[in-house]
Amino acid sequence: MTRPILTLTTDFGLGDHFVGTMKGVILGICPQVQIVDISHGVTPFEIGEGAYLIAQAYRYFPKKTVHVVVVDPGVGTARRPILMEAAGQYFVAPDNGVLSLVLAREAGAKFRLISNAKYFLPQVSTTFHGRDIFAPMAAHLAAGVPAARIGKRIEDYLKPGFDKPHREGKRTWMGRILKIDRFGNVITNFHVDDFGDLGLRSFSFAFGPVTVTAMARNYAERAPGELFAILGSSGYYEVSVSQGSAAKAIGCETGASIELMVW
Amino acid sequence: MTRPILTLTTDFGLGDHFVGTMKGVILGICPQVQIVDISHGVTPFEIGEGAYLIAQAYRYFPKKTVHVVVVDPGVGTARRPILMEAAGQYFVAPDNGVLSLVLAREAGAKFRLISNAKYFLPQVSTTFHGRDIFAPMAAHLAAGVPAARIGKRIEDYLKPGFDKPHREGKRTWMGRILKIDRFGNVITNFHVDDFGDLGLRSFSFAFGPVTVTAMARNYAERAPGELFAILGSSGYYEVSVSQGSAAKAIGCETGASIELMVW
Amino acid sequence: MTRPILTLTTDFGLGDHFVGTMKGVILGICPQVQIVDISHGVTPFEIGEGAYLIAQAYRYFPKKTVHVVVVDPGVGTARRPILMEAAGQYFVAPDNGVLSLVLAREAGAKFRLISNAKYFLPQVSTTFHGRDIFAPMAAHLAAGVPAARIGKRIEDYLKPGFDKPHREGKRTWMGRILKIDRFGNVITNFHVDDFGDLGLRSFSFAFGPVTVTAMARNYAERAPGELFAILGSSGYYEVSVSQGSAAKAIGCETGASIELMVW
Repeated sequence: MTRPILTLTTDFGLGDHFVGTMKGVILGICPQVQIVDISHGVTPFEIGEGAYLIAQAYRYFPKKTVHVVVVDPGVGTARRPILMEAAGQYFVAPDNGVLSLVLAREAGAKFRLISNAKYFLPQVSTTFHGRDIFAPMAAHLAAGVPAARIGKRIEDYLKPGFDKPHREGKRTWMGRILKIDRFGNVITNFHVDDFGDLGLRSFSFAFGPVTVTAMARNYAERAPGELFAILGSSGYYEVSVSQGSAAKAIGCETGASIELMVW
Repeated sequence: MTRPILTLTTDFGLGDHFVGTMKGVILGICPQVQIVDISHGVTPFEIGEGAYLIAQAYRYFPKKTVHVVVVDPGVGTARRPILMEAAGQYFVAPDNGVLSLVLAREAGAKFRLISNAKYFLPQVSTTFHGRDIFAPMAAHLAAGVPAARIGKRIEDYLKPGFDKPHREGKRTWMGRILKIDRFGNVITNFHVDDFGDLGLRSFSFAFGPVTVTAMARNYAERAPGELFAILGSSGYYEVSVSQGSAAKAIGCETGASIELMVW
Repeated sequence: MTRPILTLTTDFGLGDHFVGTMKGVILGICPQVQIVDISHGVTPFEIGEGAYLIAQAYRYFPKKTVHVVVVDPGVGTARRPILMEAAGQYFVAPDNGVLSLVLAREAGAKFRLISNAKYFLPQVSTTFHGRDIFAPMAAHLAAGVPAARIGKRIEDYLKPGFDKPHREGKRTWMGRILKIDRFGNVITNFHVDDFGDLGLRSFSFAFGPVTVTAMARNYAERAPGELFAILGSSGYYEVSVSQGSAAKAIGCETGASIELMVW
């Protein structure tokens, strides 16, 4: 009799009552659930960062885990709540692309519109769907409600612009910063599956006026203070600096653009 | 056989061992308990902010939940530990007003002095009652110890000054900032139940030299950078700025005074 | 049928997916476990700070608790993963001294090399042993795997330099800052067991050009703004300032040196 697992990934921070309130709603519906925080430190409204975090974490959770991902700048507008079934797990989120980096790894994902208000809180506010829709919906799923009861299948979920870089010219692509981690490493959306081993070619990553042209195989091989690119364990290219914060050295923020040139 | 739920709201932050230590004490007494963090990010010693957070969160928890609220500038002095029973839930806290905003919503609350040292840790320090008194007391409650064993009923609990604004003149009231949320919204202690719909009248909220005289019905209707008041889902008036931090624009801090003038 | 308890102390922060990912690994192996965060706010790579936090917290946890402590600047090098058994509890960590302040309190601690790869994740990265080695190993221990299966006993675990101050001269010792807490108190590694009651003697703590020569018995007896030393509840001397942050007043950081002179 394993306890169901439910994870939370949001941009709510930990200083407010928002996360605790969601957990109260969840435990009221599914008292036996085990709740795990992935992160509540997503930069406010940065959908790409939320997408990156859940895509890194979900693979380490058991089948049937229910993941709630709420980075939701469109709350209160017509954007829809959706359920994605992939990898034997459930993902509950607004339909704004925040699940796209999981989707990119998983064939056979199925989507549903979350529409059965029986599984919402009785009063749904226009500002806090995390509490009123996503938390109770996910708790009911964790408690065993079949996905088919949530709402009908859809195919027209939103495909966002941040999941892959866009080709700008013969040798140039425009990507973006998915995440700046605790150590100041800058994680890009340039993936090895799309761009191959950049270390075998000449390249530059340009962050405004700052360019990075060196590729390292490990962190130790570079001089302190030198900016370099490195292939992260996530499969995305990252920009780092030995013994320092690359984000500070560059002066960049999550969500900013990056131009890659390869020749 | 539902597991008991115990929540924590403190100003201890997450960088120290304080919260983890309290959880060790709790699990040693009540191994089956489900612990939920509301927030540990209360501004140090800001009782009003702790009061606001637990008052927003408790309504979403099931009956019999035990809430521990430790914002306790008076630890080591004569201030008393108390238990409040309200809304079918338990609240364990120092007697300094930190439960007053829950109390304001709940008729029929009952108070007890926490005095039965049998439910404390064997050694009680002068600096960390969260660990030595509040955590073990709450864990025993969660484990089923009846409230009557905690200590005798009292009526003379502290009524703090921050729970409602004070009238200063015919048209003026002095209130305070209960909370600055993650997005920089400034939550005041002016409640719609006390002040009605300010949008139907002329008013100004003054934060020192900065005044706010516009009322919005939703966030979207205002120009970027403009300060405005809005009625929050909590029932308190808030001051916000479109696409920015109102707290930064005003230059204010949690606990600061606000003058309301209505005419 | 008590649920096993597993705690986490790391320098991973809460903004990334690292902690959530470790919890996914743990729950996949030991679904019934209760996970408790001690802190993930250790200053990156500050082994002494991690050592201090777990040494403060573990005493409040029940027997058989499994503590995972990952402050691991040497990840990917030859430093070894170890298991320490002490006080009836388990400690899983890199062999870099991060357990030394627990060890200093516990006679009869036993060490094992963690070597049985059967209890690791199938793929072990060079950058994230928290996920690939420490989390799964600890989860197997929590699930009941006997310590003897983990690896062979060792005696040559690392004895770090930060656990005690070093004598520099007849009247001088060189120590370090173990931790700066949320309130800006500076916790040193000068312990009352080694240095006795400094309040009975003349002394100075020097942080570069700033010296502290006053000893307080409690926080209330000092004037606002005055720096003073005080014996903390941990047994370590701390430097504080009334109604302010001593760390800011001094301008110091975790890990910095402190010279004690006694005469």
